[in-house]
Amino acid sequence: MRDDANYCDSSISAGGVRAATQRLAGHIVRTPLIENERLNEIAGGRVLLKAEPLQRGGSFKLRGAYNLLSQLSPAPRARGVVAWSSGNHATGVAIAAKEFDCPAVIVMPADAPAIKTENVRALGAEIVFYDRYGDDREAIAAAIGEERGMAIVPSYDHPHIIEGQGTVALETVEQAGDTAIDRFAICCGGGGLTAGCATILEDVAPGAEVWIAEPEGFDEAWASVKAGERLTADITQKTICDAIATPTPGRLTFPILKRRVSGGATVTEAAVRHAMAFAFRHLKLVLEPGGAAGIAAVLAGEIPTQGVTTAVTLSGGNVDPALFASILRDGENPS
Amino acid sequence: MRDDANYCDSSISAGGVRAATQRLAGHIVRTPLIENERLNEIAGGRVLLKAEPLQRGGSFKLRGAYNLLSQLSPAPRARGVVAWSSGNHATGVAIAAKEFDCPAVIVMPADAPAIKTENVRALGAEIVFYDRYGDDREAIAAAIGEERGMAIVPSYDHPHIIEGQGTVALETVEQAGDTAIDRFAICCGGGGLTAGCATILEDVAPGAEVWIAEPEGFDEAWASVKAGERLTADITQKTICDAIATPTPGRLTFPILKRRVSGGATVTEAAVRHAMAFAFRHLKLVLEPGGAAGIAAVLAGEIPTQGVTTAVTLSGGNVDPALFASILRDGENPS
Repeated sequence: MRDDANYCDSSISAGGVRAATQRLAGHIVRTPLIENERLNEIAGGRVLLKAEPLQRGGSFKLRGAYNLLSQLSPAPRARGVVAWSSGNHATGVAIAAKEFDCPAVIVMPADAPAIKTENVRALGAEIVFYDRYGDDREAIAAAIGEERGMAIVPSYDHPHIIEGQGTVALETVEQAGDTAIDRFAICCGGGGLTAGCATILEDVAPGAEVWIAEPEGFDEAWASVKAGERLTADITQKTICDAIATPTPGRLTFPILKRRVSGGATVTEAAVRHAMAFAFRHLKLVLEPGGAAGIAAVLAGEIPTQGVTTAVTLSGGNVDPALFASILRDGENPS
Repeated sequence: MRDDANYCDSSISAGGVRAATQRLAGHIVRTPLIENERLNEIAGGRVLLKAEPLQRGGSFKLRGAYNLLSQLSPAPRARGVVAWSSGNHATGVAIAAKEFDCPAVIVMPADAPAIKTENVRALGAEIVFYDRYGDDREAIAAAIGEERGMAIVPSYDHPHIIEGQGTVALETVEQAGDTAIDRFAICCGGGGLTAGCATILEDVAPGAEVWIAEPEGFDEAWASVKAGERLTADITQKTICDAIATPTPGRLTFPILKRRVSGGATVTEAAVRHAMAFAFRHLKLVLEPGGAAGIAAVLAGEIPTQGVTTAVTLSGGNVDPALFASILRDGENPS
């Protein structure tokens, strides 16, 4: 991970998450917290779902991107920003850049879902493709940043990104009102959302356990927490959970994960597909695979939900129609 | 339409809608009001979407059903209720009956979407099938009501149903806050939702025009308003908009429609399919065909939206996976 003293520091705090909420007001959607009777029955407890597919750009990613861009000084911001992303962070950065009227270059894998490249292009950002199985995306982004004088917007390992994503948990706790959250389950890639949520939860819901859900083969975050050091997944593996197929927890996110994450669930591709079909049928929400990992873990019994209240992030809904259609065809057994 | 002096009167009022809101509190979801930048761009104005697919049972229908059942006397209610419906009203009645712990019989067309019959059955209601192209569903329901001493819960032509559905518009106006709604577009079948919304809008947003959206071939409500008398559609026609394929406006709903509806839009099946694909891609919401008629009319330019604020009901999301998959496959041209 690249260090850049100009816009990076390691102080990540609940206060920073609160400040992010102020900055984001009017620029993001305060997404609804949803509850479903069928899911509660299956879980044997209350499950509260934070519906970030309804966010601008179809995932939570605008929160961190907007929080970072809003804190860049006007002159460097005017030169533009560069980011690498499989798509959701790309869209978040592109929306934020459009609001601040600055150029954005996004380094995206050549096999990113079409819906994500279309989203980014429609927002006026420039896309540079790389080969997910060979190229070094960070080096490509760094070279572009150097050449064009653009600020890099990391997808998770930056205090302002982490604090922006943490607003998901702050809203969830506020929306839950008098209902105490016992467990907070988060779809986890590089750990930006998890670290931000864990940071604010420590302040507003200290009794809530933080759990992470990861796809099979990319469950290195929980493995890292257990090992006490950052382990690396083989990113050449195929997965439908493109949004959270990250190689390793971040330099900044990992210490927070290590201190605050109580449990991890690994979900199979079949469990993710089932969860997406469940959300179609019972929630009427479109989830993308990576955004369905948390609810998949609940449905598969990989996160203990019996007799407690569990909050779950539904973190995104940008899925290609053909994949979604294939999941509906397979998932015809009603549940 | 059957008259029954025991539970039917013709006084439908804004006060009745407000009272319904009190009765429904804690039993229904206050569904979010959603706005989407792409849709606003296409519409050339602000479009506020009331997301009733996120309602319990996947459509607005619980509102009216619960409002009616809660006003039945305990003794007759305990004997149970009977309703006829293609599915959404059936689900609403079944949920309400379950909450009041009374039996429910639903008369459903043999060709109702499987997702709807499964919903009803899972809620513990009994289903009696009829042939949509031959049998008289009202006569079947009346006979069951007579035989078992059950109260009939009409799908739209009852003051308590109409007033319950009207809570959709009251919430919408409250959620819109300082934003004045110029036009309120409603998916229209028998007119229960339209009549309820029109009644409360007259009180809380008297400047808002009421528009209805109907599927091709079943656009007899607007035709009736224009003609000044209740016309009848040929219900043997096929349509994917099963939820709003009703033969004629109701005895109670029509006078309200005639007085309050300013415009009507007819949407083709292609426009409905396009709207469902749009909602998948940009809203991350699952809409059923009948529930997509309003947004389909906006996308097709059949409702004037330029420079004004238009509220649109997304009235339900109970669609069979196979149909939804086929729509995703056809709608691959990004919009």
